[in-house]
Amino acid sequence: MNALLDEIRHTPLLWLLVFVPGVLVAAELAHEAHTLLFVLSVLAIVPLAALLSHATESVAAKTGDAVGGLLNATLGNLTELVIALTALQAGQYTLVKASIAGAIVTNTLFMLGASSLLGGLKHHVQEYNRVNARLQAGLLFLATIALLIPSLVSQTDSAAAAEFTQNLSVGVAVLLIVAYGLGLLFSLKTHKELFASAEQGDEGEAPWPIGLALATLAGVTLLVALVSEVFVESVQKAAEAFGMSQAFVGFIVVALVGGAAEMASAFSGARKNRLDLSVGIALGSAAQIALFVAPVLVIVSYFVGPTPMGLDFWPGAMVMMFFATLTASMVTNSGRSAWFVGVLMLMVYLVFAMALYLMPPREQPVGKGVEATRTEAGK
Amino acid sequence: MNALLDEIRHTPLLWLLVFVPGVLVAAELAHEAHTLLFVLSVLAIVPLAALLSHATESVAAKTGDAVGGLLNATLGNLTELVIALTALQAGQYTLVKASIAGAIVTNTLFMLGASSLLGGLKHHVQEYNRVNARLQAGLLFLATIALLIPSLVSQTDSAAAAEFTQNLSVGVAVLLIVAYGLGLLFSLKTHKELFASAEQGDEGEAPWPIGLALATLAGVTLLVALVSEVFVESVQKAAEAFGMSQAFVGFIVVALVGGAAEMASAFSGARKNRLDLSVGIALGSAAQIALFVAPVLVIVSYFVGPTPMGLDFWPGAMVMMFFATLTASMVTNSGRSAWFVGVLMLMVYLVFAMALYLMPPREQPVGKGVEATRTEAGK
Amino acid sequence: MNALLDEIRHTPLLWLLVFVPGVLVAAELAHEAHTLLFVLSVLAIVPLAALLSHATESVAAKTGDAVGGLLNATLGNLTELVIALTALQAGQYTLVKASIAGAIVTNTLFMLGASSLLGGLKHHVQEYNRVNARLQAGLLFLATIALLIPSLVSQTDSAAAAEFTQNLSVGVAVLLIVAYGLGLLFSLKTHKELFASAEQGDEGEAPWPIGLALATLAGVTLLVALVSEVFVESVQKAAEAFGMSQAFVGFIVVALVGGAAEMASAFSGARKNRLDLSVGIALGSAAQIALFVAPVLVIVSYFVGPTPMGLDFWPGAMVMMFFATLTASMVTNSGRSAWFVGVLMLMVYLVFAMALYLMPPREQPVGKGVEATRTEAGK
Repeated sequence: MNALLDEIRHTPLLWLLVFVPGVLVAAELAHEAHTLLFVLSVLAIVPLAALLSHATESVAAKTGDAVGGLLNATLGNLTELVIALTALQAGQYTLVKASIAGAIVTNTLFMLGASSLLGGLKHHVQEYNRVNARLQAGLLFLATIALLIPSLVSQTDSAAAAEFTQNLSVGVAVLLIVAYGLGLLFSLKTHKELFASAEQGDEGEAPWPIGLALATLAGVTLLVALVSEVFVESVQKAAEAFGMSQAFVGFIVVALVGGAAEMASAFSGARKNRLDLSVGIALGSAAQIALFVAPVLVIVSYFVGPTPMGLDFWPGAMVMMFFATLTASMVTNSGRSAWFVGVLMLMVYLVFAMALYLMPPREQPVGKGVEATRTEAGK
Repeated sequence: MNALLDEIRHTPLLWLLVFVPGVLVAAELAHEAHTLLFVLSVLAIVPLAALLSHATESVAAKTGDAVGGLLNATLGNLTELVIALTALQAGQYTLVKASIAGAIVTNTLFMLGASSLLGGLKHHVQEYNRVNARLQAGLLFLATIALLIPSLVSQTDSAAAAEFTQNLSVGVAVLLIVAYGLGLLFSLKTHKELFASAEQGDEGEAPWPIGLALATLAGVTLLVALVSEVFVESVQKAAEAFGMSQAFVGFIVVALVGGAAEMASAFSGARKNRLDLSVGIALGSAAQIALFVAPVLVIVSYFVGPTPMGLDFWPGAMVMMFFATLTASMVTNSGRSAWFVGVLMLMVYLVFAMALYLMPPREQPVGKGVEATRTEAGK
Repeated sequence: MNALLDEIRHTPLLWLLVFVPGVLVAAELAHEAHTLLFVLSVLAIVPLAALLSHATESVAAKTGDAVGGLLNATLGNLTELVIALTALQAGQYTLVKASIAGAIVTNTLFMLGASSLLGGLKHHVQEYNRVNARLQAGLLFLATIALLIPSLVSQTDSAAAAEFTQNLSVGVAVLLIVAYGLGLLFSLKTHKELFASAEQGDEGEAPWPIGLALATLAGVTLLVALVSEVFVESVQKAAEAFGMSQAFVGFIVVALVGGAAEMASAFSGARKNRLDLSVGIALGSAAQIALFVAPVLVIVSYFVGPTPMGLDFWPGAMVMMFFATLTASMVTNSGRSAWFVGVLMLMVYLVFAMALYLMPPREQPVGKGVEATRTEAGK
């Protein structure tokens, strides 16, 4: 327990934890103050995500390479998963799909771009292991193609098409999870030497004792779930107040908030001239969203939420996911980075964010609304 | 003749030849038993394709490097060409276009993916000549772009648009054949050293005497034509019985059946740690479909079949062709392969197959039906 | 002045300068002879572009590395910029957008393809610095993605959508210009050693004295502006007479005419086995169009021309820009070139040109006509 308090005392980011009770109390007292609740819940999720990340790594460090890697890989995007599950339960499919697409795009363009820029401002040219980076970018690219196929082949809005998209989405989800499992076998067992450098992680921080780590993991996950509920409830009205579309919130805000802890690690790696680490975190996290988080949400949607959710994305979101992963492949190809590469990736990310922000309300849906079609058709 | 019988006796695959007379007799006796005829014709085409492939290689081995290479390059996809010509004659444009698109996708994703997986299960990491692979993937990519342009720029269904697509298709077909001819000059004459490793082929098998090889070539081509006729006649009704769409049959079944012999060579190369050979066969065969088979079919359609055929593909087929060749470029870029790369390519192929299988009947056309528009407009 | 006359005497291309007074006189005397005026103006622009290019280089050589590089980078596409500004003033948005898209596609596919072919006919295999080429292809790719986003996310034709596209276009234009400025800082200051080889340029030609160079720069720019006016006025009717669409003229003719001088340098570099130089000119010029010329036109359109111009391109133009820059990335990846690579790039370019030439008139708009929508909505 002392280790936890010590950690909190020395990490200014964790002082934000004060907002966790803040938001929960505020949600009871003033549940109509959507804008306040939205801001408080965002401020509360950031330190919780950081704690979750540290707890996962501590458990991973204690349980040895294979189990630890598995934990890291499964729980690395736990914050995003909990937020998306809460939104799913509330039937906010647009928010769920926007946060899937946004996490893939933000992890590649923003996390990789800002790492290149921050690293490049300190180091003239940074070299990294291009074989690993290419392999990871290739996995991410293929996973994204599989994820996009249901949206790409379904183009009409008839009830038959909606059923087809839904069946295909479930099939793709099952295949993606199988591929994810085989990928863990590959990276943790048969070819773990290829992924060695990326796993060393933040050696600076001492791992917590296993008991504390497990307790933190459980407790913080619960807190994230509670805060997510406030976040999901307040997001729609708060977004309107800020002039932001729901697509923008899901795509940009959720992805930045949920990924804050990983970003901190990636940026610190880049500053220390260990760009391998940054590339590994960014591409690994994006691949995990595509191969694990997205299909889990499709399958869970059969048990939770008003209707099953399909993997049908709005064309703009598809274009952005495709461009982001194609860019990751192009950029990591050379194995070299300089500050301007980061500037260009961030510029593309800004263009995407600007498009989502400016988009008129009627054109916003990130999912094409198979769920709605199906519901109407079922009447 | 003894060499031929000897070959058949020692190659279990060729025992399937018994289905050749079987299907021809059955077609006479029970020409309403579509499902039976479909299964028999598939079983009969596989060994015929293998014989055709061996006969072509034997002729090629006897006639020396340049002529041999030309023969191999021209007749390598003879089975696919004969099946497509038969379908063209019967006016089954959807089947023809699906089999063009399917051959490109199957040769890249399935043949390359399964080679990577099979090779990777035996060898930890396989390295191959990445300069050649990149060059071949680049050729395939550019040929595919050219092939897709008529579909991409024609978006409306008016009669003027149909005529435009048709004219553009013929122009593209002529350019592709010229490029193919120059490509043969490049790979067989001016830069043959770049393609050396891929041409050594199946050294294990002894080439047949030239007379036998030529006779086999002629005889088997005739048999393929006869069996293809049964296949094309039965495919529609049989597909319905199996719950398969015509797009699925053309895209997946024809491509797998027609390419069985090449796949056997590619897989055996991968198992022997000669992944260069597998990559060469897979990408070379796909490029040949795009640069030679597809344009020949467009031009031949002016002399055979009810109306000329255009190069307009259904959007889903375009997406699949584009992703498949882009994947080939990405994956062959690194010059290294491990089993999981194969798993991911096969996963994308399975997603494509699943999409085609599940697609509701009304949304199936692989070609956008320029032919139909033109016929109506001509009334 | 003698240096200028000497240059003209020894450069057959510059003998075409006789058409400059020719076209200006003809425009006064026979301003209905559109076809004649079109041909004369094309013939007059080619030598002016060459002079402009030489004058810019001479000024650049005298003013030192940093300022010189800035000049070269800013004025390298001055001809295209002046033609586009004249068309903008005349409200010919289709021509402006076609010439932006066409300059990107022509500089990559045609200039790079013809350089590969011409170099490859003389040298068996040409190697070039693949790190620089990849970096430049990467910049071009990211700039093109940013340029395409406004077209990609706006899909309907409502007034709200038109306003959204327009606002997004301005935002993207500002970001592109900022990125361009940072790119100059990168290539001329912080990382100039990476771009060293491409800058040496045409060492053969002696630079002019600074006074002559500046006077030529000013005088020739004025002449280009005068001739462009004739060109823009005559182009529509002349195109009809030649059976060419306006999209074809903007995309192919303007791009080839405006880039003639750069092409001469790129081809001569390729023949001298300095393919680095050719790749640098081609990709650098294309990137400059995307990062500087296009956004400047968007911003200038607020001050010049009937209505502001948005960055919305016709789907076919988007596809061509995307494929061209993707091809540049793929092809420059290997760092090796042979004649057949050039043949394939030229084939894709020919397919694009053919599609634009054959396209029926009603489907020609290269921009989707946001301007028209906005004007109507404003009524």
